[in-house]
Amino acid sequence: MTKSVDFWFDFASTYAYLAAARLEETALARGVDVRWRPILLGPIFARHGWNTSPFVVYPAKGRYMWRDVERRAAELGRPFKRPGPDDPRDFPQHTVMAARMALVALDCPQGKDFCRRVFFAEFEEEKDISDPAVLLSIAIDLGLPEDIQEKATHPENKARLRASVEEAQALGVFGAPSFTVGDELFWGEDRLDTTLIWARG
Amino acid sequence: MTKSVDFWFDFASTYAYLAAARLEETALARGVDVRWRPILLGPIFARHGWNTSPFVVYPAKGRYMWRDVERRAAELGRPFKRPGPDDPRDFPQHTVMAARMALVALDCPQGKDFCRRVFFAEFEEEKDISDPAVLLSIAIDLGLPEDIQEKATHPENKARLRASVEEAQALGVFGAPSFTVGDELFWGEDRLDTTLIWARG
Repeated sequence: MTKSVDFWFDFASTYAYLAAARLEETALARGVDVRWRPILLGPIFARHGWNTSPFVVYPAKGRYMWRDVERRAAELGRPFKRPGPDDPRDFPQHTVMAARMALVALDCPQGKDFCRRVFFAEFEEEKDISDPAVLLSIAIDLGLPEDIQEKATHPENKARLRASVEEAQALGVFGAPSFTVGDELFWGEDRLDTTLIWARG
Repeated sequence: MTKSVDFWFDFASTYAYLAAARLEETALARGVDVRWRPILLGPIFARHGWNTSPFVVYPAKGRYMWRDVERRAAELGRPFKRPGPDDPRDFPQHTVMAARMALVALDCPQGKDFCRRVFFAEFEEEKDISDPAVLLSIAIDLGLPEDIQEKATHPENKARLRASVEEAQALGVFGAPSFTVGDELFWGEDRLDTTLIWARG
């Protein structure tokens, strides 16, 4: 029996961006349903003693990551734009509002589109997705509720995001993208196909 | 024009073991030559502030790695044996002698066989490859020179290993397995196919 897949992501993750770009098409081809699960890596990284992305903590890994993502995006035909040294956008970007809005959006049919559009704004259109106006404009464009940011910052929705982070940690998630099929954890965009095969049983 | 690939590995690396198991067959199928480059990750990890494997430093990553390697070995049809909690073998194992011997062995036609046999002894036959007797028995079995350990510990050969580690670091290597095609760096067993495509040009 085919099982559904949970896709755990932080909008700041370059590899989650690559996964998001090809996820639905790939899953559809294999007949697998995917649940998109926005989380924040900050609290997870904090438990490893990192106060930012490991790609910033470990410069050799960071240099490699940018080049690797550039190559992989080219393979996938995506117009990835690497933030330059003079780029005003931070890496990693602050993604709390994006994640909270995504939770609300994912209750609507446009949810996955919203998530993809946020990733593309960040990594292809050189936009600052920590800016609520950038996020709101994507939401409105997709016909999501105009009060989405009020819904997003409602205490119940904030608590929902915290609960997602805790659920991810309990499943062993330590980076993004991660995929789970029941208790089985897969880490990395390059594990997507293995995950889908696993879900098919 | 097809370029050759350098395969950088520490014998302690589980993912390097997986790469070693399928490397030559995969490269042959694509008409690519691979140079096996034993190194030590210790001095490289030390620059990241780690005094052991990141899989020990970060337990969540470590738990994931063992499960992931188990799944991947099954996919490749390899009889991987995960060290149990009561296993006398350390993880990561001490690999200085193995790396020094591999450098000598790789000057002979049996070199790649020696490297594979060491990985299989470690991860499939539950042997302690920090034990020089285990290593010598593999070497003798393959018809390598009986004085291989004297050659391995000769100051010139020790210096050769240090130079390899420095060369790897200069290329940006921060983990194993890594592959390089000229200045282009690829990290991870799951990047082997991409590397070979790159080498084909």
